[in-house]
Amino acid sequence: MRICILGGDGYLGWPTAMHFAARGHDVVAVDNGAKRSWEESVDVVPLDPVPTLEERAEHWRRGWRRPIEVVHGDIAGDPGLMHGICRDFKPDAIIHYAEQPSAPFSMMNQESALYTQHNNVQGNLNVMFAMRDHCPDAHLIKLGTMGEYGTPNIDIEEGWLELEHKGRRDRVLYPKKPHSLYHLSKVHDSHNLEFACRVWNLRVTDLNQGVVYGIETPEMDGDPMLCTSFHYDDIFGTVLNRFVVQAVIGMPLTVYGNGRQTRGYLNIRDTLQCVELAALNPSQPGEFRVYNQFTEQFSIMELARRVQKAALNLGHVVTLQHVANPRAEQEDHYYKAVHAGLLELGLKPHLLDDEVLVGMLERAEAAAGRVSEVGLLPRVSWRHGLQEESAPCTAAVS
Amino acid sequence: MRICILGGDGYLGWPTAMHFAARGHDVVAVDNGAKRSWEESVDVVPLDPVPTLEERAEHWRRGWRRPIEVVHGDIAGDPGLMHGICRDFKPDAIIHYAEQPSAPFSMMNQESALYTQHNNVQGNLNVMFAMRDHCPDAHLIKLGTMGEYGTPNIDIEEGWLELEHKGRRDRVLYPKKPHSLYHLSKVHDSHNLEFACRVWNLRVTDLNQGVVYGIETPEMDGDPMLCTSFHYDDIFGTVLNRFVVQAVIGMPLTVYGNGRQTRGYLNIRDTLQCVELAALNPSQPGEFRVYNQFTEQFSIMELARRVQKAALNLGHVVTLQHVANPRAEQEDHYYKAVHAGLLELGLKPHLLDDEVLVGMLERAEAAAGRVSEVGLLPRVSWRHGLQEESAPCTAAVS
Repeated sequence: MRICILGGDGYLGWPTAMHFAARGHDVVAVDNGAKRSWEESVDVVPLDPVPTLEERAEHWRRGWRRPIEVVHGDIAGDPGLMHGICRDFKPDAIIHYAEQPSAPFSMMNQESALYTQHNNVQGNLNVMFAMRDHCPDAHLIKLGTMGEYGTPNIDIEEGWLELEHKGRRDRVLYPKKPHSLYHLSKVHDSHNLEFACRVWNLRVTDLNQGVVYGIETPEMDGDPMLCTSFHYDDIFGTVLNRFVVQAVIGMPLTVYGNGRQTRGYLNIRDTLQCVELAALNPSQPGEFRVYNQFTEQFSIMELARRVQKAALNLGHVVTLQHVANPRAEQEDHYYKAVHAGLLELGLKPHLLDDEVLVGMLERAEAAAGRVSEVGLLPRVSWRHGLQEESAPCTAAVS
Repeated sequence: MRICILGGDGYLGWPTAMHFAARGHDVVAVDNGAKRSWEESVDVVPLDPVPTLEERAEHWRRGWRRPIEVVHGDIAGDPGLMHGICRDFKPDAIIHYAEQPSAPFSMMNQESALYTQHNNVQGNLNVMFAMRDHCPDAHLIKLGTMGEYGTPNIDIEEGWLELEHKGRRDRVLYPKKPHSLYHLSKVHDSHNLEFACRVWNLRVTDLNQGVVYGIETPEMDGDPMLCTSFHYDDIFGTVLNRFVVQAVIGMPLTVYGNGRQTRGYLNIRDTLQCVELAALNPSQPGEFRVYNQFTEQFSIMELARRVQKAALNLGHVVTLQHVANPRAEQEDHYYKAVHAGLLELGLKPHLLDDEVLVGMLERAEAAAGRVSEVGLLPRVSWRHGLQEESAPCTAAVS
């Protein structure tokens, strides 16, 4: 297949590019490098230094592997970019990761909020129009997030909801109460894409992904020249990654609020499996298909306890510490989300066990000397934006 | 009250400004004049020449009436504008009409689609942030549209839906399938505003308005220097306005598709009543309140027949003509929309009767010599964008 990956320099984009190239597909990876400048603007760096996309693609090719073509460009700022790619490369599938991916980044201030919604929504619109004009039969695989749903008091279905109201029935887009202005940008994308399917007959799969963790994918093969960006900070990191890093540097694992917030999680290897399954089994023309992409549900406290236990096996005595929750979110809530579609397509989950945690801890140990303290405590309040001082800690619990 | 009207130069904005000023409120009208340039870009002009906002405000003041302050500025392009207004004017209510208001405009091409969503969503975000920072207790009255809902197979409720699913209950935002990329921009606004209420405790009333018709409001008092912009074209006109103009120039009333599409409608006078009722009865802090703002439902064919009949009374023999529907929409559909909230607040509807129609026809007759043929037939296809040639007509029916 001909696969176009948008956001090919990112945490998931680069591993996805290698995954498809290793399986014999023609891959173009598009990126404008913006993520690296966003990281710089909030003083964070990934755990391991990450070669540029061009350097990684070149290193990959020199290993006698199927080349990954790199295109430097901005899908949001350059409305013609996707027209050129769709016209000339004629992708069978477009995998769209090219968005500002951080909720705290979107909540820092007015500028970052406007930027996030502009960048994400306009980029996605540009993809829609280019597909309509040049490759209307291609399949768009768009990365959404479980955070679009919020924490409703009913079961979360996969994008659509069959409902009965006053004796009549309809199938409607699942109603959403997103967690941040970033999550809202993805809700806007989903609505725009459903429209594009309805009016222009495009094929779209929206993957509402849980929180991804993990450093390694098979194609990296331990080669630092092929690594991906592993973030553990408050802006671009995810919670399990942060706990792992906190554990190896002897810092308490900082739990936002009471820690009973429950979400779906998945291993980065399963992201690659899911995206591949979606690509190999495209939605129909005119179909806006949604899958919830995660393999397990955990509360923050459960994750913290698991990291604590795995770290102890490696000799790290780790405590937990509750900090004031910088987010505006329900801490005690119902949470039951369907995630059947990708399993039906054949997903074989890599569950979070001690072996996975020990692997992550060992990788973090090896890089412990490079850990920056910036962002190990939260800096962005949902109500007040980016704070100069980190939020104060409250009582420690074991 | 201190009332800030965004989009004060528009079809509804200017009459709203006069309406509040005439009732003793302090009014600031904000506009950047963009609508006039959009009109120029698609070769349309309103039926009567419309003096500038500054000229109308000056004429209004000279009549010994309570002044309407005019601010020239762009709420979307200038992120600081609303901060200054919220800080210095300290509005009790902000009435937000300042959006690109046309579905066909948004569907012309990629550029107009991106512009519409950028302008509308970013402007609304700027209002949210300025309110959060300077007047968090003010009440935002945001104009949405019934077209956000689409044509679901269940009753349309007022913004929220109480539902039961798998034995559990929740109150959710009403799920939407909007009719165009313009309507989608309003859905995005609504989602962003519900979030602002939830996280920043803002007060918002979202008015999902039906199709507005009418030329006159009492404050105009027949004075052409106080008139509003009456559009009858394919881009900025609404259907009843167009039928009235077609009738007086002896052109068949052009019905898109089979004409069984049903929507909610209201008189421009009722828009003013509704907005005033919302302002006098604000939502609570943290409340995202939604009203469906229309007074009657009609199919396109019913409207055409009514105009045909009223025109006959004035001596115009008018035919109807079906034209290929340029929109992607269901023509045969269920449509039942609740519109109880504004009636409960005291709305006294001005229904569409022969007297109203004759009044509109007479106004159109007086200006018949100025009618432009541009846009009397549809130019924008939902599937293919702006067409050089108008869509072909199909069979005439009486």
